[in-house]
Amino acid sequence: MQKFISQIKPLDCSVMAKAQARLDGLVKPPGSLGKLEEIAVALAGISGRLHYDASKRCVVIMSSDNGVVEEGVASAPQAVTHMMTLNFVRGITGASVLAKQFGADLIVIDVGVNADIDHPHVKNKKIRKSTWNIAKRESMTRGEAEHAVLIGIEAVIEAANNGYALIGAGEMGIGNTTTSSAVLCALTGIPAEQSAGKGAGLKEEAYRRKIEVIETALKHNEPDPDDPIDVLAKVGGFDIAAMAGLYIGGAVMRVPVIIDGFISMVAALAAARLAPAAKSYMLASHKSFEQGFDHAAVALGIEPCLQLNMRLGEGSGCPIMFAVIDAACAVMRDMGTFEQANIGDEYLDEIKEGDNFSV
Amino acid sequence: MQKFISQIKPLDCSVMAKAQARLDGLVKPPGSLGKLEEIAVALAGISGRLHYDASKRCVVIMSSDNGVVEEGVASAPQAVTHMMTLNFVRGITGASVLAKQFGADLIVIDVGVNADIDHPHVKNKKIRKSTWNIAKRESMTRGEAEHAVLIGIEAVIEAANNGYALIGAGEMGIGNTTTSSAVLCALTGIPAEQSAGKGAGLKEEAYRRKIEVIETALKHNEPDPDDPIDVLAKVGGFDIAAMAGLYIGGAVMRVPVIIDGFISMVAALAAARLAPAAKSYMLASHKSFEQGFDHAAVALGIEPCLQLNMRLGEGSGCPIMFAVIDAACAVMRDMGTFEQANIGDEYLDEIKEGDNFSV
Repeated sequence: MQKFISQIKPLDCSVMAKAQARLDGLVKPPGSLGKLEEIAVALAGISGRLHYDASKRCVVIMSSDNGVVEEGVASAPQAVTHMMTLNFVRGITGASVLAKQFGADLIVIDVGVNADIDHPHVKNKKIRKSTWNIAKRESMTRGEAEHAVLIGIEAVIEAANNGYALIGAGEMGIGNTTTSSAVLCALTGIPAEQSAGKGAGLKEEAYRRKIEVIETALKHNEPDPDDPIDVLAKVGGFDIAAMAGLYIGGAVMRVPVIIDGFISMVAALAAARLAPAAKSYMLASHKSFEQGFDHAAVALGIEPCLQLNMRLGEGSGCPIMFAVIDAACAVMRDMGTFEQANIGDEYLDEIKEGDNFSV
Repeated sequence: MQKFISQIKPLDCSVMAKAQARLDGLVKPPGSLGKLEEIAVALAGISGRLHYDASKRCVVIMSSDNGVVEEGVASAPQAVTHMMTLNFVRGITGASVLAKQFGADLIVIDVGVNADIDHPHVKNKKIRKSTWNIAKRESMTRGEAEHAVLIGIEAVIEAANNGYALIGAGEMGIGNTTTSSAVLCALTGIPAEQSAGKGAGLKEEAYRRKIEVIETALKHNEPDPDDPIDVLAKVGGFDIAAMAGLYIGGAVMRVPVIIDGFISMVAALAAARLAPAAKSYMLASHKSFEQGFDHAAVALGIEPCLQLNMRLGEGSGCPIMFAVIDAACAVMRDMGTFEQANIGDEYLDEIKEGDNFSV
């Protein structure tokens, strides 16, 4: 893992400067396309190219089960992880439908589903059938956590070698908002009640139970906040660790990786703690409705572009963000310059000083 | 105009109930796709159909000049309105590029550009070359304001008859954030300093001047807040009035009209004051960086889906929202039901009580 992390390079500043210069010469007040411009510059820095071809894209879904569900913290039974993993490749889930709508493939990886899956379109990278129950012991061994991160890194290396230029980080795992909340608490020090969410329907009693379980897990396992692998191993999940690997893999291969919701954001935070240079290769998609999301996003220092009150997970927010990225690429590629727009120097100075054509 | 307003019908509640029932039966926790579900239900109510085909879509750009620019409130010269109007149809502006990226046509309408435009792809609906200077007198006559609104209504009737099922409301007009701010003040009673924006670059002195001009315009013209046509005529612009007509036209023809940025949002507010039932046919796209936007959005009671810090105008935010609407339509059309997902009744009760598959 360290071998890969040490390969991560910073963004290409000289291409970013060229990208910014081109954007400033396009027929609009400088900066008026906001985050579209920031994304276009980031893509230039990531790829080393002024124009980014994001047409081949995918959402990678890490499926895994969590031993903590035996504490009664999850509202759906564990078998749903297995069924939904199959439903992804059947094309009927939210993530499947949205990926297809925005021209993205799904890559479904079993990292620890508590069932035997033998399906040609589910990659078998199972570490073990389900993690252990974090309320009683560590989730996995340190070696297993490193293995999970490596699975994520290698998934992106393979995807990038197959031409994917944009990757979304998705997951499926009953119980994984509990483990994500525990990881977030361990990494940031916030209390469980700020990290754990009720979602739309978790009853007050079940929510209290979830918070208690997270507190117990943190107390018993004593994850070391300065050692992200220790945190992932003690209170995380195979899915979260493998997703953290996706972000690191993106940075290694210089491919942007898109953050989805709460679990995806927590994994991104863990990745940035493991490999701070990886952060520049991440883009956030939507502001999840899950309350812990904001704490994780602030800790990571990254802002989403969409506010859709979504809380499905699966990587379902990533494909919509792909469209925003398409917009950024189109601006960079297709807009005309002031010169092409017949807006001459006599106007240019005035415009560049002003804020808006429409003022 | 009243003839059209009286034709507006409320949304079709029975189809909305069917749409909600279908969404609740799809393989996800109820409500977990947030605004995508709300949009899908709204589209059902607008169209009377469960599935909405939004594939033929356009952005309508109302171009017009504003007499108030002689007060020095605008950072770009008036001639830019003319040039940009031509640049839209040349395909090199932000709105042109983004419309093309998301499969939308541009319909460019000259409602009052201060130049003769003879171009086959710019519709000549010129009311007059530029409005008057609102710092000195009313912007236009009451009859002209009604005429401008009618131009907008008729543009949507024509577009809908040509098969357009999704319409974005765009504009071009140097000086139109000043008129929009004045309209917003008149309609809501907020002070000019909350309504007027600095954007990224308007110097402090020019910004103070802009606020003074708005205050002067409001004081001299005394627009009646209870008479939106009076407000549009006294301190608005041909562009704003024509855009207000787009929203009313959308409600008449049962086609959703997408709000872009500040000017577009102020026009939507004016339309909702003229025809309260039209509000249900509007969808907001992005949260503009212009500070008055939030006041207008709160007054209208509508929330945007995208936060991109954009402040270009032109209708440039609408095409990105078209992609969000595509996402909502895809969810409704393509996702599988719990039954199709092999998630049986024994799980269903539990899941429906819970908040999230991932809990």
